[in-house]
Amino acid sequence: MSDLKARFLEVYSVLKSELLNDPAFEFTDDSRQWFEQMLDYNVPGGKLNRGLSVIDSYKLLKEGKELSDDETFLSSALGWCIEWLQAYFLVLDDIMDSSHTRRGQPCWFRLPKVGMIAVNDGILLRNHIPRILKKHFRQKPYYVDLLDLFNEVEFQTACGQMIDLITTLVGEKDLSKYSLPIHRRIVQYKTAYYSFYLPVACALLMSGEDLEKHTNVKDILIEMGTYFQVQDDYLDCFGAPEVIGKIGTDIEDFKCSWLVVKALELSNEEQKKFLHENYGKEDLASVAKVKELYNTLKLQDVFVEYESKSYEKLIKFIEDHPSQAVQAVLKLFLGKIYKRQK
Amino acid sequence: MSDLKARFLEVYSVLKSELLNDPAFEFTDDSRQWFEQMLDYNVPGGKLNRGLSVIDSYKLLKEGKELSDDETFLSSALGWCIEWLQAYFLVLDDIMDSSHTRRGQPCWFRLPKVGMIAVNDGILLRNHIPRILKKHFRQKPYYVDLLDLFNEVEFQTACGQMIDLITTLVGEKDLSKYSLPIHRRIVQYKTAYYSFYLPVACALLMSGEDLEKHTNVKDILIEMGTYFQVQDDYLDCFGAPEVIGKIGTDIEDFKCSWLVVKALELSNEEQKKFLHENYGKEDLASVAKVKELYNTLKLQDVFVEYESKSYEKLIKFIEDHPSQAVQAVLKLFLGKIYKRQK
Repeated sequence: MSDLKARFLEVYSVLKSELLNDPAFEFTDDSRQWFEQMLDYNVPGGKLNRGLSVIDSYKLLKEGKELSDDETFLSSALGWCIEWLQAYFLVLDDIMDSSHTRRGQPCWFRLPKVGMIAVNDGILLRNHIPRILKKHFRQKPYYVDLLDLFNEVEFQTACGQMIDLITTLVGEKDLSKYSLPIHRRIVQYKTAYYSFYLPVACALLMSGEDLEKHTNVKDILIEMGTYFQVQDDYLDCFGAPEVIGKIGTDIEDFKCSWLVVKALELSNEEQKKFLHENYGKEDLASVAKVKELYNTLKLQDVFVEYESKSYEKLIKFIEDHPSQAVQAVLKLFLGKIYKRQK
Repeated sequence: MSDLKARFLEVYSVLKSELLNDPAFEFTDDSRQWFEQMLDYNVPGGKLNRGLSVIDSYKLLKEGKELSDDETFLSSALGWCIEWLQAYFLVLDDIMDSSHTRRGQPCWFRLPKVGMIAVNDGILLRNHIPRILKKHFRQKPYYVDLLDLFNEVEFQTACGQMIDLITTLVGEKDLSKYSLPIHRRIVQYKTAYYSFYLPVACALLMSGEDLEKHTNVKDILIEMGTYFQVQDDYLDCFGAPEVIGKIGTDIEDFKCSWLVVKALELSNEEQKKFLHENYGKEDLASVAKVKELYNTLKLQDVFVEYESKSYEKLIKFIEDHPSQAVQAVLKLFLGKIYKRQK
């Protein structure tokens, strides 16, 4: 494990123990035990990219000046708030999607003693974020902006999840409801705001910046988040399962994936009919037929073209930005995802 | 319908239409329709006591001075934030409790097209609160205190729900885990903060008060909320179904009710054994046996005694308060619940 990650995990332990001693609530012994197990099961087990990127971004915005212990702790705490937000979304999304596994273990709600208590556990995870913010940022001039930021991004994510769920409901009756604009809208709200914009926005606030003056940074990160999700959709079908660590099921699950949307766009009437007949079916034969059509339509080439165009466009936007430090942050994000295989 | 309630409902329509036009999110036609139906189904259909009490409390704190249109709107908006919070809790609680009906209609998640999408709808309801607060209170000196207040109270409610769920899980194996202190703790966190303290705290903030200086008001309202829930537990078993509008199932559901806790306290060894054998069973015979024991132990008299002692204690606390206006608010709340039959 890298030194940075080890130090980041130490901050997790501090935050957990502070939450266990929050004066706003007195735990019983049983609930203390539950709480601790629930956090350890759901919060720290991911790749931690979102959380760590707050620290990285803050460092770059400081233009190479060494971070004080306090700055390291605070940027880590903000990073953990995003990881907590992610844990909250995942615990609840798994219930809504009837998923079975997550990060190589059964989904939290699948544990026999947990079940639907997981709904409240998700809510608790969400409620820890303002507790952490209040404890460590209440006296900062940017405290209210932090609260507004987390509130707005959570709202946008929940709205994205809403259009995703409803589009799938409608799409199951009528596939032609799926389109590039709707795909883009889902991705932007459901993924890009919290995964790409939020970490950088946290680092900007800590640096004393006014977010209203950085709408172009937001636009670039949303664009990057969209590109990231298109990659995700592509890898679900064309990635190597042993590399991405799962077997994709977007076709079976009737997902409004970039691939099906592109396929609809490029298909002739006959191919569209074929897609309508085979998309969203559980049986392997139907899935194979959809993949065959994707190959006929050369979707792999279409993706490679999309990828290089997105990259060029993003680099151009980034290099137009007046601040070298901000450019460095944005290039760091782009470098991490460009041509990723997992 | 009272004039006050009619005007309160007009504010609901304004808030709903503002949310539909929130610049942070672009609705699709399908999601706009869903959103509107979901709000109308879940938010305005209750008794609206919590919401209306913000306006009443604010009026009393103004000592009879007429409210301006702006003050009426703002206190109504805060009242609606509490109703939104309540709707969010109920939508999710119904899923966790596998409930069937709520406010005389099927629970939202029981509608065939809704199902587990209700989890995200609950989240959306919760997310509307900071949107309403930001739109109407961002420029107020007490904005950050409002955010902190809603965050803290929601956290306490979720923690109360956690100990309720876990206590029931443990209690099902061992009834003797139920006790008066644990009952008190669940009630305080799960119900009293958001139902009793929150409306008054909102009115105090709007009046320019510092909540830190009103911890005694908080203590009195938490005490009142506890008394309210004990009444609820009592009415679940001894209330008239045609008056309370439902048939209580606390005994069948193994609830940590004030009645079972009192029964355990007053029982001899033989009676305790009897209770262990019959509490939490679905069959009517077991339920009848538990009720018989409640009668043997004269729980109705114990409750009447508890009720009059609580009242005396609360009145004494209230009359010790230095402000006549605050006394009036607290007496208004107490008057609404003392000896209630539903």
